[in-house]
Amino acid sequence: MSGDGIVLGPNQYGKAEVRLVRIDRDTPRHEITDLSITSQLRGDFAAAHLDGDNANIIATDTQKNTVYAFARDGVGAPEDFLLRLGRHFTGECAGVTGGRWEAEQYTWNRILVDGEPHDHAFVRGGTETRTAVVVFDGGEQAVISGLRDLAVLKSTDSEFRGFARDRYTTLAETDDRILATSVTARWRYNSTEVDFDAAFADVRGLLLESFAETRSLALQQTLFAMGRRVLQARAEIDEIRFSMPNLHHFAVDLTPFGLDNPHVVFFAADRPYGLIEAAVQREGAEQSHPAWNGIAGFC
Amino acid sequence: MSGDGIVLGPNQYGKAEVRLVRIDRDTPRHEITDLSITSQLRGDFAAAHLDGDNANIIATDTQKNTVYAFARDGVGAPEDFLLRLGRHFTGECAGVTGGRWEAEQYTWNRILVDGEPHDHAFVRGGTETRTAVVVFDGGEQAVISGLRDLAVLKSTDSEFRGFARDRYTTLAETDDRILATSVTARWRYNSTEVDFDAAFADVRGLLLESFAETRSLALQQTLFAMGRRVLQARAEIDEIRFSMPNLHHFAVDLTPFGLDNPHVVFFAADRPYGLIEAAVQREGAEQSHPAWNGIAGFC
Amino acid sequence: MSGDGIVLGPNQYGKAEVRLVRIDRDTPRHEITDLSITSQLRGDFAAAHLDGDNANIIATDTQKNTVYAFARDGVGAPEDFLLRLGRHFTGECAGVTGGRWEAEQYTWNRILVDGEPHDHAFVRGGTETRTAVVVFDGGEQAVISGLRDLAVLKSTDSEFRGFARDRYTTLAETDDRILATSVTARWRYNSTEVDFDAAFADVRGLLLESFAETRSLALQQTLFAMGRRVLQARAEIDEIRFSMPNLHHFAVDLTPFGLDNPHVVFFAADRPYGLIEAAVQREGAEQSHPAWNGIAGFC
Amino acid sequence: MSGDGIVLGPNQYGKAEVRLVRIDRDTPRHEITDLSITSQLRGDFAAAHLDGDNANIIATDTQKNTVYAFARDGVGAPEDFLLRLGRHFTGECAGVTGGRWEAEQYTWNRILVDGEPHDHAFVRGGTETRTAVVVFDGGEQAVISGLRDLAVLKSTDSEFRGFARDRYTTLAETDDRILATSVTARWRYNSTEVDFDAAFADVRGLLLESFAETRSLALQQTLFAMGRRVLQARAEIDEIRFSMPNLHHFAVDLTPFGLDNPHVVFFAADRPYGLIEAAVQREGAEQSHPAWNGIAGFC
Repeated sequence: MSGDGIVLGPNQYGKAEVRLVRIDRDTPRHEITDLSITSQLRGDFAAAHLDGDNANIIATDTQKNTVYAFARDGVGAPEDFLLRLGRHFTGECAGVTGGRWEAEQYTWNRILVDGEPHDHAFVRGGTETRTAVVVFDGGEQAVISGLRDLAVLKSTDSEFRGFARDRYTTLAETDDRILATSVTARWRYNSTEVDFDAAFADVRGLLLESFAETRSLALQQTLFAMGRRVLQARAEIDEIRFSMPNLHHFAVDLTPFGLDNPHVVFFAADRPYGLIEAAVQREGAEQSHPAWNGIAGFC
Repeated sequence: MSGDGIVLGPNQYGKAEVRLVRIDRDTPRHEITDLSITSQLRGDFAAAHLDGDNANIIATDTQKNTVYAFARDGVGAPEDFLLRLGRHFTGECAGVTGGRWEAEQYTWNRILVDGEPHDHAFVRGGTETRTAVVVFDGGEQAVISGLRDLAVLKSTDSEFRGFARDRYTTLAETDDRILATSVTARWRYNSTEVDFDAAFADVRGLLLESFAETRSLALQQTLFAMGRRVLQARAEIDEIRFSMPNLHHFAVDLTPFGLDNPHVVFFAADRPYGLIEAAVQREGAEQSHPAWNGIAGFC
Repeated sequence: MSGDGIVLGPNQYGKAEVRLVRIDRDTPRHEITDLSITSQLRGDFAAAHLDGDNANIIATDTQKNTVYAFARDGVGAPEDFLLRLGRHFTGECAGVTGGRWEAEQYTWNRILVDGEPHDHAFVRGGTETRTAVVVFDGGEQAVISGLRDLAVLKSTDSEFRGFARDRYTTLAETDDRILATSVTARWRYNSTEVDFDAAFADVRGLLLESFAETRSLALQQTLFAMGRRVLQARAEIDEIRFSMPNLHHFAVDLTPFGLDNPHVVFFAADRPYGLIEAAVQREGAEQSHPAWNGIAGFC
Repeated sequence: MSGDGIVLGPNQYGKAEVRLVRIDRDTPRHEITDLSITSQLRGDFAAAHLDGDNANIIATDTQKNTVYAFARDGVGAPEDFLLRLGRHFTGECAGVTGGRWEAEQYTWNRILVDGEPHDHAFVRGGTETRTAVVVFDGGEQAVISGLRDLAVLKSTDSEFRGFARDRYTTLAETDDRILATSVTARWRYNSTEVDFDAAFADVRGLLLESFAETRSLALQQTLFAMGRRVLQARAEIDEIRFSMPNLHHFAVDLTPFGLDNPHVVFFAADRPYGLIEAAVQREGAEQSHPAWNGIAGFC
């Protein structure tokens, strides 16, 4: 309380985007783990805000040091590493009652030399990024895994018809269009005891397969089909949320040049773009979980 | 309900980043309004997700058209324009019970010719962007204004001392450092009847002044002082939230070259960076407002 | 000539970043070609610059239209498509004596469904981008192909020793470091009659293999080895130029925490970074070719 | 020579984007200089490339250290600082016969408190960036100053008519359009003895004034007028080169909604965009100067 009816609300602080690369080199066949980690603490920090009294403040520099020191023992799945950080900070730091730890992971594939994967030379993998968020709140822990920038495209098998028409509607119906999006998905586990690497690989595959197999009547329907496929297959996931732009590909009108265009030549537009966002949930898990707070683009 | 215990959760959809430029040219002295607008509808869209039935779907293309058509009559403050869009969609579209409309506004200044502001030639203004979010939920309306990327720096009058020390702490205390941040701030009004342009200009000035005048003991304390200044001055604002990176400037150790460095030569680091996030609230308004959901970086 | 001793120098103009997606759909197994094309014309445009007389100006909008119209017949390798554009503009447009056409190509892989590549569903491939530049100058034509953002990393087999030391040198020698870079390479063909797709795939593989196999004594030496490998294998290439950042990975000092760090935990730095740029050339082709003008980062 | 007819061509290496912030604090009224500096050396580095022999290599880390050490004595205009670096490296390092030094400078304005500029609190200035390149080649020195991302817009006084028409032309002529661009300009001085700060401020003002005052018949004509104005005013500048995108603002067709649109509502497009590039030169200085090599976008 600052004496004038103005108070401190929710707050957190920490170190963002700590770039950690760990090489496992116990054998000549090295493994690489490439992460960007953000650590944020929550707790009793009113004195710092109101009076500049930093006695409870674990410096963000210390949080960074802790990330690097913990990595000495190994990293493993990003979710497990974040859980380990969360247990440390909430368990050993006075005034820290919770926090939020986030990771991005970048993929490296082995370079092929004469068709054989090399032991210690790597090339960056796909364009998408694996993400993980762990939230500690009192004794509760939540894990939300995900991916972003998974760009996918179908060159047919997509239509958009039967939508509402009003005085501002000019769009024609179509029964054959390109459907392209860049998937951001995040899914919340109902447990912290999960083989997160295996689950991630499985979910990524399910998302791609269901995108490919679903005849699209609307991006909303594709989205729901993708989410349902994941929840059906993975009992440890209670909810998955998507933010999926509709990256428009407009067939170019070639008639001024005396040419037809049977869905062959397209202009890929940048902006504006459609934006479809939704949660797919297991019945009984509809209550919004506080771990979603602060994540952009999810309503 | 899809029949297998998997259900649709919260969802919204629309058109993102509609780039609207309006020229007011009733007199030779033109005015320019430069916006990026995102329109998202909420309501009864389960059929689209579950069955691909688009009967309730106002196409995102229609939402874009509506933005441009409404701009014909004038735009005004971005908040007022978004409120107008919200009233239209929630009032006239079956199945639409709410939504979220967002704007970014870019600043243009008049070019000076012989010291005089030109009538119709402009140069882009500062690096920061003005933001606005309007949320309709049933009969409720909320307005959250803000700015992002307001980069500020103090070359002295900033210290950081008395913080907790543990086995991972190596940071030295300092009583004189550079304090630099890039302010993202968003404030929630308790009314929709506000002179939003005047309020924005005032808040921006108050944020800069309080940053300059506050001797910083921690970025948290600076943040709270900035928020308090705004709430003290503007009764129509109930809450302001900040996400402020601590953009580290490290004094370079020049002793290997036989030189001292009395706070003169600094290395501006990119990553990692500190990240301080907090809400400053008017007493009685602490209850988290749902309009904050989906905004990144606010806990 | 503008009458006051001030003259027009080299110039070109056109349409940049025309986003062209072509779907080959003659069979159910679709093929996708995804390009960003820039067309720039050179010739007799002095009247446009000096007098605003546009009689010789092929509007940039027309250049864009031409790209889409030509794509109706098929695209093929980006180099071949650019050559076709160049022949059209220099052959049929009065005043056009040359020009520069550039393409970026984005990779799409087929989504695997039950282990089988899908007919018409795709996921974006690697992070790197294929590039092509074609220059027409009078009757001469030059083709420069390339790639950018090919990120590679070696976790060992890299050293840096024996460098010059002066009063500003503090860097320690090392016989084991991480070597990481993001390769931008461009190579100039001595012919326009090349299977450009096959050559690209081969060069990309040679670059990766030679990066993996070369024990690095300096990034300069790695660069030269990569270039030599390409010139040895492809007689139709006369020259290859590289711009390769040295993306520093610093071993973190963990001794303050009572830990050693045997090349296991690294901080990946953003800026500053080393930057190594060089041309590798076939003897007799050292004369700088004018097609390199205007390409960033090549001295 | 590597023995197989493959040779090293032009090359340079160094440290890129050294982020230097210097605070002048001799009086309570601090001054801030904020730079990103790239240092690249040219000379006898064949042994490093061919044999991994680094004896002539000034480590990029040493180049970085030199930047910071030299800043201890003051920085001044970026061009002067780069000249100082160039003299040092070419004068004192064996094997270094030339090089290229580049700077970007970021603007900070004083925060106003009660209308008065503050002594040590700053806010980032405009969106554009000042640039400087200095090239040493044997005994020759060249200075090219510039700016990038200077966004300007005219809401009228721009037309585009009388251009060539062919079978791919669909664009209508117009006598009133929005003209918007983001100026990248670089100008070459014929001396190193220049008050670079004053010249920069003057050139920036001349570019803005001439953009505002010229009735545009084509962006090419506007470009030439801007360049001519600079060369007429500044005898120490021999040449100025521009790369100017034509950032299209399309009037939206509102007739489907029963509305006219008298140049009031526009869609600001991202891609594609026109791209106009040209040099304006003083007679007698038309010979292309080698300092332009490696600068993107100048033909």
